[in-house]
Amino acid sequence: MKIGRLAASGALAAVLTSSMALADPLPSWNETAAKDRIIRFVDSTTDPASEDYVTHADRIAVFDNDGTLWSEQPVYFQLIFALDRLRALAEADPSILTSDSLKAAAEGDLSKVVEGGKEALLELVDVTHSGLTVAEFQSVVADWLETARHPVTGMPYNEMTYQPMKELLSYLRDQGYKTYIVSGGGVHFMRVFAEDAYGIPAEQIIGSLGETEYVVEDGVPTIVKTPGLAYFDDKEGKPVNIDRIIGKRPIIAGGNSDGDFAMLEWVTSGDGPRFGLIVHHTDADREFAYDRDSHAGRLVDGLDKGPGLGWLIVDMAEDWARVYSSDR
Amino acid sequence: MKIGRLAASGALAAVLTSSMALADPLPSWNETAAKDRIIRFVDSTTDPASEDYVTHADRIAVFDNDGTLWSEQPVYFQLIFALDRLRALAEADPSILTSDSLKAAAEGDLSKVVEGGKEALLELVDVTHSGLTVAEFQSVVADWLETARHPVTGMPYNEMTYQPMKELLSYLRDQGYKTYIVSGGGVHFMRVFAEDAYGIPAEQIIGSLGETEYVVEDGVPTIVKTPGLAYFDDKEGKPVNIDRIIGKRPIIAGGNSDGDFAMLEWVTSGDGPRFGLIVHHTDADREFAYDRDSHAGRLVDGLDKGPGLGWLIVDMAEDWARVYSSDR
Repeated sequence: MKIGRLAASGALAAVLTSSMALADPLPSWNETAAKDRIIRFVDSTTDPASEDYVTHADRIAVFDNDGTLWSEQPVYFQLIFALDRLRALAEADPSILTSDSLKAAAEGDLSKVVEGGKEALLELVDVTHSGLTVAEFQSVVADWLETARHPVTGMPYNEMTYQPMKELLSYLRDQGYKTYIVSGGGVHFMRVFAEDAYGIPAEQIIGSLGETEYVVEDGVPTIVKTPGLAYFDDKEGKPVNIDRIIGKRPIIAGGNSDGDFAMLEWVTSGDGPRFGLIVHHTDADREFAYDRDSHAGRLVDGLDKGPGLGWLIVDMAEDWARVYSSDR
Repeated sequence: MKIGRLAASGALAAVLTSSMALADPLPSWNETAAKDRIIRFVDSTTDPASEDYVTHADRIAVFDNDGTLWSEQPVYFQLIFALDRLRALAEADPSILTSDSLKAAAEGDLSKVVEGGKEALLELVDVTHSGLTVAEFQSVVADWLETARHPVTGMPYNEMTYQPMKELLSYLRDQGYKTYIVSGGGVHFMRVFAEDAYGIPAEQIIGSLGETEYVVEDGVPTIVKTPGLAYFDDKEGKPVNIDRIIGKRPIIAGGNSDGDFAMLEWVTSGDGPRFGLIVHHTDADREFAYDRDSHAGRLVDGLDKGPGLGWLIVDMAEDWARVYSSDR
């Protein structure tokens, strides 16, 4: 009787183990070397018997957003939001269009903004992203996400998130990793959709930041978005902000453009096991194909130096069984 | 047989339940109204049947550090660190003492720095907190904590932490709250001891921040502390940084000085259940007694307006059974 029960529980354990081994944490990844490398890395850092074991507190994984977790073509989605909002604001009050580049932008022509460089871009951001409370701004963004549609796919922007990357985020969290976004996108903008889209809470989202002020009006305290940029979370700003806000060097970093190079360089040069991942946009059929010559998501250093630094270059066309959650 | 086992497990459950009810989460708090208010608030926000129930994701509690979690007299401990480090640096190279206020400070006389106001203070911070990597700086702080002793108590500074507040932090975490530090102290400085002292990990520590740069030297990427202040996490800067970094309005805020007023005001004016707590330094025997006239931890608005805003004013002499962990 005793032996019989032990045998039964042994059989149960065997069934559980094999069903766990069979459950695929990354079903939208093809069975290529990329998937294999990811799973082997996660296994080795979470198995207490492994020499690459990493304690829970240090299991930090950081990911860029634009082009890494969701699409970024034909231009960054937040820029499309800015244009849409500029148009809506200008309809109510055309006097806000105080420059040629703003006037052109309100007509949907970004060329003048691009010509005007950083200054023109910041002007556009100031006009469309300040002069209201954070709560008001986020309600404007939420309304926009409800109604705006992507010019090529016709999809809501927050559905143009990459299913394979969402599976990777979930898989990492299931394995005790804390997942962060570290993006050049605005932190107040991303917080509107990132929790629903990726399961990443507000406090694990790092992004570019407009200036804000604490204002008590009629006894009601609020945080108001004011003109000016507190910091731009791109290139060298990414490792700097990770140090400021997280205070630990992550174990895993994922990106897709040279704006992520410093972040991946910093993460993967730490001691112990490290993983750098670059999403390479190779799939013109299902998404967009671009790298060295793209104005958004330009990728040169990552392709030239990444493999030598041990980074995994994910080939979207080869390695992903689907791109968006809505793809079959 | 079956009934017997059920009865036995029922008895076990009863024993466990009553021992849980008897276990005191705040043994270093006296049985006063303060302790009762804290426990009632935590119970009401964590009981799913309560109308004040708060979901896990929103259980955020923020605490000041100087004067709230550890002592801050006769001056902020980080200022004592700065003086000690200035002296050590000047011994090796006296030419770093480029101003009268730095010369006086190196001799342990803070009056010239105080006279010189913010500019003199920032000069002292620049000289002692920049020109090295974050890792190097934190190793200097760790060495200092090993050897430096408080001028009045003779204790290591990181043992002058308040046992009742440490119990409160643990209790909140046990009840599903995420605990944060939001302090005027330097974030790189606090991260050296805060995890050991309070159980708060690096990524939940918000503080003032010196400028930093990402530097790759001989192929080795590092974060270097450079002169200048990125932001001062005090007064209105506290709610601003909570919005920037946490992105949610916390449910509980604790502080001890008017530098915490805006943070408590913002937190406790939100919808739903909110808790503001002020540590009032009333205990000259066991710690220090100060409030309205103190240069460090000045407390006027909190005493005048706090009670009307529903904040709990903790009377250290009355409400705390002990102050430091080493007290009997």
